[in-house]
Formats: sequence, structure tokens, C-alpha cells
Amino acid sequence: MVDSELKDIVQFDRQKPDVYGNAHPKSLLRSIMEDGKHLEKLTNQHVYSSDQFDRKTLLQLFRLAAKYEANPGRFSTSLQGQILISAFYEPSTRTRLSFESAWHRLGGDIMSITDRSTTGIAKGESLSDVAEMFNNYGDCVVLRDSNEGSVKEMMDTLRVPIINAGNGLDEHPTQALADLYTIFKWRPELIEEHPKDPIDICIIGMPSKMRTVRSLLKLIAKFPKAFSKVTIIANEEESSVFNRDQQEQLVKAGLNIAVTSAFAETIQFADVVYINAIAWEGDTFKEYGTKYKLSNQSALKPDAIILHPLARGEELCTSLDVTPHNWYFAQARGAVFLRQALLTCLVRRAERVLDII
Amino acid sequence: MVDSELKDIVQFDRQKPDVYGNAHPKSLLRSIMEDGKHLEKLTNQHVYSSDQFDRKTLLQLFRLAAKYEANPGRFSTSLQGQILISAFYEPSTRTRLSFESAWHRLGGDIMSITDRSTTGIAKGESLSDVAEMFNNYGDCVVLRDSNEGSVKEMMDTLRVPIINAGNGLDEHPTQALADLYTIFKWRPELIEEHPKDPIDICIIGMPSKMRTVRSLLKLIAKFPKAFSKVTIIANEEESSVFNRDQQEQLVKAGLNIAVTSAFAETIQFADVVYINAIAWEGDTFKEYGTKYKLSNQSALKPDAIILHPLARGEELCTSLDVTPHNWYFAQARGAVFLRQALLTCLVRRAERVLDII
Amino acid sequence: MVDSELKDIVQFDRQKPDVYGNAHPKSLLRSIMEDGKHLEKLTNQHVYSSDQFDRKTLLQLFRLAAKYEANPGRFSTSLQGQILISAFYEPSTRTRLSFESAWHRLGGDIMSITDRSTTGIAKGESLSDVAEMFNNYGDCVVLRDSNEGSVKEMMDTLRVPIINAGNGLDEHPTQALADLYTIFKWRPELIEEHPKDPIDICIIGMPSKMRTVRSLLKLIAKFPKAFSKVTIIANEEESSVFNRDQQEQLVKAGLNIAVTSAFAETIQFADVVYINAIAWEGDTFKEYGTKYKLSNQSALKPDAIILHPLARGEELCTSLDVTPHNWYFAQARGAVFLRQALLTCLVRRAERVLDII
Repeated sequence: MVDSELKDIVQFDRQKPDVYGNAHPKSLLRSIMEDGKHLEKLTNQHVYSSDQFDRKTLLQLFRLAAKYEANPGRFSTSLQGQILISAFYEPSTRTRLSFESAWHRLGGDIMSITDRSTTGIAKGESLSDVAEMFNNYGDCVVLRDSNEGSVKEMMDTLRVPIINAGNGLDEHPTQALADLYTIFKWRPELIEEHPKDPIDICIIGMPSKMRTVRSLLKLIAKFPKAFSKVTIIANEEESSVFNRDQQEQLVKAGLNIAVTSAFAETIQFADVVYINAIAWEGDTFKEYGTKYKLSNQSALKPDAIILHPLARGEELCTSLDVTPHNWYFAQARGAVFLRQALLTCLVRRAERVLDII
Repeated sequence: MVDSELKDIVQFDRQKPDVYGNAHPKSLLRSIMEDGKHLEKLTNQHVYSSDQFDRKTLLQLFRLAAKYEANPGRFSTSLQGQILISAFYEPSTRTRLSFESAWHRLGGDIMSITDRSTTGIAKGESLSDVAEMFNNYGDCVVLRDSNEGSVKEMMDTLRVPIINAGNGLDEHPTQALADLYTIFKWRPELIEEHPKDPIDICIIGMPSKMRTVRSLLKLIAKFPKAFSKVTIIANEEESSVFNRDQQEQLVKAGLNIAVTSAFAETIQFADVVYINAIAWEGDTFKEYGTKYKLSNQSALKPDAIILHPLARGEELCTSLDVTPHNWYFAQARGAVFLRQALLTCLVRRAERVLDII
Repeated sequence: MVDSELKDIVQFDRQKPDVYGNAHPKSLLRSIMEDGKHLEKLTNQHVYSSDQFDRKTLLQLFRLAAKYEANPGRFSTSLQGQILISAFYEPSTRTRLSFESAWHRLGGDIMSITDRSTTGIAKGESLSDVAEMFNNYGDCVVLRDSNEGSVKEMMDTLRVPIINAGNGLDEHPTQALADLYTIFKWRPELIEEHPKDPIDICIIGMPSKMRTVRSLLKLIAKFPKAFSKVTIIANEEESSVFNRDQQEQLVKAGLNIAVTSAFAETIQFADVVYINAIAWEGDTFKEYGTKYKLSNQSALKPDAIILHPLARGEELCTSLDVTPHNWYFAQARGAVFLRQALLTCLVRRAERVLDII
């Protein structure tokens, strides 16, 4: 390899042009008045379901996330002395590194468990006993398990907070929090009581099969006036698109829900397009909606933003990465700050970072 | 799920009623005069076998553990700058997290190896060369290996201390230290030269098959006057209950040893009931004494305490968890502080925490 | 086991006689004038290939490594707040612990990935997306992958530096840096423009099959006047010993290259004997040159030093460990300091440790 070729390969830029939605933590910060009172309830709660969060707590969480994102190096000792037990029994690198990065940045320590077979569970130990062990060794737990009931079973015995980082097909609350945080960073005015310009969100995915989608819809239901329309695009039987009465609950919350398989016709009117194709079922995954593909040839509104929980496959073409529609990288980046905010509250360190508490 | 159900599920208490033997570090602290001289010998020793510890060193170790347990946040920089190599070649989460939590709480850093197949051993590298590598990369090693001879082989080359965290069927010295620490926290007067009320301890398990039991009996033998009787309950041939001449050594040390299969008759007189049913043999485990079960229906002395190294199965019923007999959770919790004490001495940081040294 | 036997087994010395080439960081420090200007180019480069380094940058890197090695405890906060992503998709403990120890000693935090199957790659995620994820979660990446093209593919998207810790059969640049650092610590005068006593180096290994050898030869080519002769000892077809035009490049750089299978005749004239027998190919390894064995019976020059990247097998007999020829343990120890120097520069923390920058 000649020197100039090598130089091209090894040199890199730390900055990239701002197509990643970088510029908005400060707008959101200015839009929400800090009030730590609404975060107090998080000091003795596990994080299990998106259902737990009311509007005021959500806004304070988003404000704290924005504060972290706007001042990334300032709070590097907030979690000093705290130990996180990072238990990923279902394979993951993305979510695990997101949580671990969040915790490290705030000065905490981590113990990782990435192999379920090394735990006492392999010896027939009960989840209740595993929880009691965690009580003695750590200050906070993050758990991802393809077994849907594990996290709830542990919650009965835990005396330190646990975050559900994905339990089977059920929920993934922190992903949903990160997604809604991203939407509000993009359009802070949507948090008002009566937003002047509510948005049209289109979700390509299956709430009944994708915990990220199910959790996100629950959060969207807390801000019904921010969303003029919520359309699910799926090419399955409509009766299988939702489960556990979710459709009824969303309608009851005041959302205008539609289900369709008409992809191109729908996305052209969407302000936010959320897409996901992979649903994990135990140790394997299944793809849904593979005929739906977004690319830079898709007819989107010029200002539309695209969200994807990642990892992505062919459904979200890389040609979109360099367009202003790309808010999915900002979504991943912002997720770290959102998790920082949540973790700080759960382990009762909010008083180290909030001015008003 | 309705809101009130959800609230019940996600809320938790950080405190639980004290059935966990929480209250005793201070009594033990007051009963032992600090004297760091007896810990000096630990500055150039590996921790291989319970046989290494004499009475005075044990008391100082227990005192230091009690000091840590009584003041959990005070010594958070004792191990700053020190690196632990946490090598668990035999599956474990409980012991690994116990050691790692102990090390993190004191401000140290950790490198974990949880998969034997990633090491040079897979390439045919000698344990001596692995030890030389550890000399260059860490300050202390903790090793669990189903291969009984690994730890001793490494000790020949290591120039940093190694702790045997379980070697095949042989020993598990730190578990035994934690167990005896728990007994003395419960009854500090047993450490006296001539205790007025020595106790009756009943061990349901097989010293020949369970390294936790074998190691504990060795430590008990250092305090023969504290134990009026030591009864092993096993339903195997008496000649197979002990091995490696342990029974003779215990008798020689002055213990009153009995072996029986009569469970109900024996436990009703015991002050301490220690139970374990699982013996690991390589990558699999075998259960012993499965007809022996303790529950809240068992006829125990009202003041009797139960110990179990955990993980437990059906031999120790959860109905006992909420009774005052439950000292097995305190045992697990105390093990972290005991390991802190030992690790501190091994890496020559005792002068940072002892007043008299 | 009787007490005295046990005492012998468990006691250890922290110091060993200096046969490990301990004494030379200071000589090298004195031989090179510090000039941070030549390290600036490392602030926006990935570390992919030995080809990237010019002579002046190498000397400053070696000086910084020597500074770290001469003052091991002094710079314990240089990497505070920095997160390393330690990704070892190909099994390794030695190189992983070497990097992680280096990073911990300087106060940084680490997230480890040791199982490729837990990453999104298992879900079909592109390496480019994995790189974008790393951009958001860490400050520096170290990657070992049996897939030769992975690191280069990630480099296109990464906005944080990545170090190639071994990519298939291609390169292992930091091992080569550590090897040359060791040679210059042993003979600092070799760094001069016109060394008075250039040395004869003999390499027992296959550059075409061993990335450590290939990378080292590239660095040796930057100091052609330091090496009077470079002899490759291999018992394969001469045409298969080199590949990718390496032999031509080395000759062009001014090195006097020879290839032979005559082992005993050649090593007796060598000043440095570098030996390696194992070549990893994917998940398995193959041994080359197994008839070549060094032992304390080998006819070496009295002052000759032996280097080996480790892990070793029968090709390097343990009888040499206690002889002054043993510089392979010093090589492993020095590698930590060399990696500290490189990592410090890559994450732009050199200004915290250099006087002249």
C-alpha cells in the first residue's frame, strides 16, 4: 500500500457535518422549567414499563437528559461509589454498551454478567435468591432476558432498583424514553399543553411483536395532543398488529390510531417515521415487514425525521445516513444521556446535579 | 395492568426487617483489640487453604471485616490504583460478584476472565507462563478452576498474591472465613480463650465432596473450645464422609466430631445448622443428602441460626427466610466485607485502614 | 500437608533476580530528547499498520513508553474520564489484559466485548453501524478479529481512534512496537543516525503467516542502519516465507535480508533471536518450524537476547527463563508501557504527560 493510500485510510475526523440532529438539547432545556419534585417518585421504583411514567416526570427526565447532553463532561462524579450490575442474559452489545457508557461517564463502577449459564440459575437457583444476591453486591441492576417474567420475579425481592432493558416481547422502556426524548429535542414546542402544530407519526413495525414499539406507543399516549395521527404500517392481519388491548388503551388516551399496509402513501405525510424490522423471539429473531424499505428515494416530507432503534438491516438504507432525515444516530447518542438521567434518579443522586430539588 | 397494580409491582423498599443478622459487626469490633502485627504475615502469602490461618490472624481479619461492615462507605479509596484479575474458569456468578463488589467498593480496578477457552491455555500455554503474564498486568488474582491443581501450579511463578476461590473438590478458604466470621458476629464471646457457652454445630453436607465444608471444618479446628460438638449429617457410608485424613486432624485439634444420618434428632439440639446439598464436580454438579430439608416446620432450637453457602435448592426452604433462623443472607452480605479485609492485607494496603499497625 | 510444606507453597517473593532486562528505561530516556511535535500526528490517526510510523514518531513513542516504565505510578490520572471499548472477537487473554492493564493504570474506564455472537453482527448489522455505535459510547477502540477486513471497514466510519490488535494474518502493530521498544531499551545506541555497532537479528518464524513477524519487519525497516543483517529461519519453501511483496520492500528500505533453514549455524551469530511457532488462522492455529527449539543448550552468543511474542510452546524451553538471554518477559512487561504511550497520544492526552509539546 503506498503511503498516500495508507494516510487516507488511517486518518479520521472527529467531527462530522451536523445531519445527526445535534443542535437541540439547549432548546429543550429552555422549554422546561427544572422541578426535581417530579423526579422524587423515581427514588423507590423499579423501571419496568412505560406505563409508570406520568407527563410531568417524563418532562423532568427529558430536561435532565438534555442537561447532561448539553454539558457532557460536567457531572463526571455523580455516580461515584455506585456499582451497576449489568446483566444481559439475552445477547446484546448496543443496549449494554449504552447503559455501561452512561454509568462510566458519571463515575460509577460496573460488574457485567453476559452469560446466563454462569449464574446460579444454571444450578436451579431461584430468581428471588439471585435478587437477594444483587441486593448485597450492587446499587442498581439492568436486566435483559428473553424470559419475559424474570424481571418482575426479581422485583419482588430486590431492594435496589432494577431497569428492564428488554424482557421477551413485552417492553423496553428506556428505549422508548430515548425515542420520545429525541422527538422532543427535535420539536420542543410539542411538550406544551396545547401544541400549535401536532405531528403525524408513522410507525413501521408490529407492537405485538416488538417491545420497542409497544413501549413507545405507551409513552406517546401521555402526550395525545402532540400527535395528530399515529399510523402503524404493517403487512400482517390487523387483528395481530396489537395485543394485550393496546389499541383500545391508545384510543382511550386520546390518540388517533390507524393501521394500514399502504407504505408509500402513508410515509409521504409523516413528520416522524419510525421503522423497525427485527423482532427477537428468544435466541433467534424474525423479520417483519421486509418489503418496507426506506431510502433516499422514498417520498418523504422534506422536514421528516426517521427514527430506528437499531440494529438495522435492509429496511433502512444507508443512503439516508447523510440526509437531514437521519435522526437515528442522534437517537442512539441521546439514549446515553437519557439513561444517565434515569440512573441518576434511581440511585438517589439527583440532588448532585439538579439545581431545584 | 391497572395503575394500582403497577404501582405495587414497581415500588420497593430499601430496608427490610432485621431478620438478617444485621446488628452485630459492632459487638465483634468491641470484642477484639486491633493489632495489625498479626496481619503482616499476609503481605507475602497466597491464600490457598484454610490451614494457613492461625487464631490471632483470624481474629484480626474478622475485626477488619467488622470494621468495614460497620463503616461501609468510609474506605472507598483503600485500593485505588490496584488491579484485580478476576479469573473464573469454573462457572460462578455469586463468588465472582462478591469479590468484584468488594474490590470496587474500595476503589480498585478489575479485569475479568470468565471463559477459559479465550486464554493461552487453549493454545497449550503453561500455567506458569499465564502466572508470569498476571505478574505484569495485575496486583492480585482471584482464581476458580475445576482443575484442582491449577492454583498451586500458578503460585510457584506468581509474584502477586492469588486467592483460591475454589479449586475442584479441594478448598474454598474465603467462603469458610466468611462463614466463621458470621458465627462470631452472632456470638462474639466464642472468640475468648475459654468460652463459657461453647456451641453445638451441625453440618449437613459431605466434607469429602464439598470444598466449602472441608475448608470450614479446618477453621473451626482453630477454635476447638468454642464448639462443644461438631456433627456431620450425611446419608453416605461413614468412611466416605471425610477424606484426606480430615477426621483424624479435627479430632487431634480437640474437636468432638460425630457423624450420623439422623437428621431430625440432631438438628433439634444444634445452635448452628450449616446446610449444603450441591457439590460441583467439574462442569456438572451432584446433589447429596436430598432427603434432608430444612423448613419453618423443622424442630430447631428457637435461637438456632442457619448457614448456607448458597446457591440453595430444595434443601433450604424459603419459609425460613422470614424467621430469625435466617443468617444465610447475612452470611452472603458479610462475605463481601470479609473479602475486603483479606484483599486489603494481601496487597499491602492495611496501613491505610488500621489504626494500630 | 505439614505446616512447613504449606508455608513453602503459600509464601512468595515480590522481587525476582533481574534477568528480565529491567534496568534500561532510563538509558533510553536519556538517549532521546523529548519532542511532542512528532506525536501530534497520532491525534487523528487510527493504528492499523506498522507502515504508518516514521522514525521520529517511533522514537518519541518509545521515549514516552520509557517515561511511563521508569515512573509507573506517577501518571495515574492521565486517562481519567476516557472510555476504552475493548473488542476481542478472536480469543485472546494476553493482548486484551495488556491493553486493559495499560488503560486502567492511567485511570481510564473500560467496556469489554469478548463474544462476537452477542453483537449486532449476529443480527446482520454492518460494521459501519457498529462503528457509529462505538462513536457514541467510547473514546477509543481496540479490536482483534480473525476477519482481516473488519478493522479497515470500521475505520471508514469511526470518529474515535481504533487500534488494530491483530487482524487475521495481516498485522499486529502494537506488538511490533513493543518488540522494537524492547530492543532499543537493551541497546539505546542503535537509535543513532549511524550506529557504531549495528546488530544481527535472526527471526524464527514466517512473515507470511505470522502477523507479529510481518509487523516487526516493517518497523525494523525504519532503522536499516541499526541492523547489519536480518535472517529469517524457516523450513518452508523460500517463496512462501514472505508475501505481499514484503521481501522486496525490506530490501528497498536498505535491509540485508537472508532466508535459511539452517538453525544452529545461524543463531550462534545472532545478537537478537526472535522466535514464534504459532500462527493463528481463524479459530484454530497451526504450528510452524516445530523442529526449531531454543534451550539453555543452544549455542548462542553470550550477550544474545531472546524475544518471543508469547504464548510459547516447546520452541522456547523454560530452561532459558533464568538466563540473561531471557528478554521475553521484559518484552511482555514493556508492552504495557508502550501501549500506554500510544493510547495517551491517540486520545489527545499527551499534553498531560509530556514536558515539551
